[in-house]
Amino acid sequence: MSFLKKIMGGSEPKQNDDYSAYIDLDKFEKDIDSSAGDEPAETYVKIAIFTHFDQITSLKKEIYDGNILIVDISNIKSDERLRNHLFNELKDVVLDVHGDIVGMKDNNILVTPTGIKVDRKKIGGSY
Amino acid sequence: MSFLKKIMGGSEPKQNDDYSAYIDLDKFEKDIDSSAGDEPAETYVKIAIFTHFDQITSLKKEIYDGNILIVDISNIKSDERLRNHLFNELKDVVLDVHGDIVGMKDNNILVTPTGIKVDRKKIGGSY
Repeated sequence: MSFLKKIMGGSEPKQNDDYSAYIDLDKFEKDIDSSAGDEPAETYVKIAIFTHFDQITSLKKEIYDGNILIVDISNIKSDERLRNHLFNELKDVVLDVHGDIVGMKDNNILVTPTGIKVDRKKIGGSY
Repeated sequence: MSFLKKIMGGSEPKQNDDYSAYIDLDKFEKDIDSSAGDEPAETYVKIAIFTHFDQITSLKKEIYDGNILIVDISNIKSDERLRNHLFNELKDVVLDVHGDIVGMKDNNILVTPTGIKVDRKKIGGSY
């Protein structure tokens, strides 16, 4: 299965993913699929769709475990209280482990663990 | 200056960034701003806006240097030849260093260096 389909949860067709919103790297991922899939890594980038209050504990654990999080908060945009709670909890972890947190475009929050920072200068930012 | 403004290139007002598209973490970033800013990191997440062919070399260098790239290809969506060229070049680096590459939502490509992989399972993917 391609990386794309995997990250989109291809095995769970009940999910209401908007396939067209994803970049199709199928052609380019085939070579990597076979080699990368089996190798364990020290650090993982994990993509989270935040919908429930009770996800916060597991998200915090990912950062404590040394993983990087990209948290999509599209689904809770209208819930300011939950959003603020999530941000405060993530901020506390980041302060604790000397990681980093930054707001990205398109309702994504990027959170990094110990040893990884987000560069504030965008590369090629001229339009 | 807040992280948000820094990543948006706040000091370069000529950039045509859509500020409203970014998540405002100002309230939550102040504590981190003072502590995180001064600490060097082993690995950086770098956000790149891809517009020109001649950015490819520097993007490849970032991966070879052990950094993580989030590459926004919105500006070259209509240029299939350039897009394919970029993907092939990034794929070759990823194969070389045993990193990872994945297409994200909203015209972003996530590329990781040695030791860092992208988890194909989304956290909380149920809508």
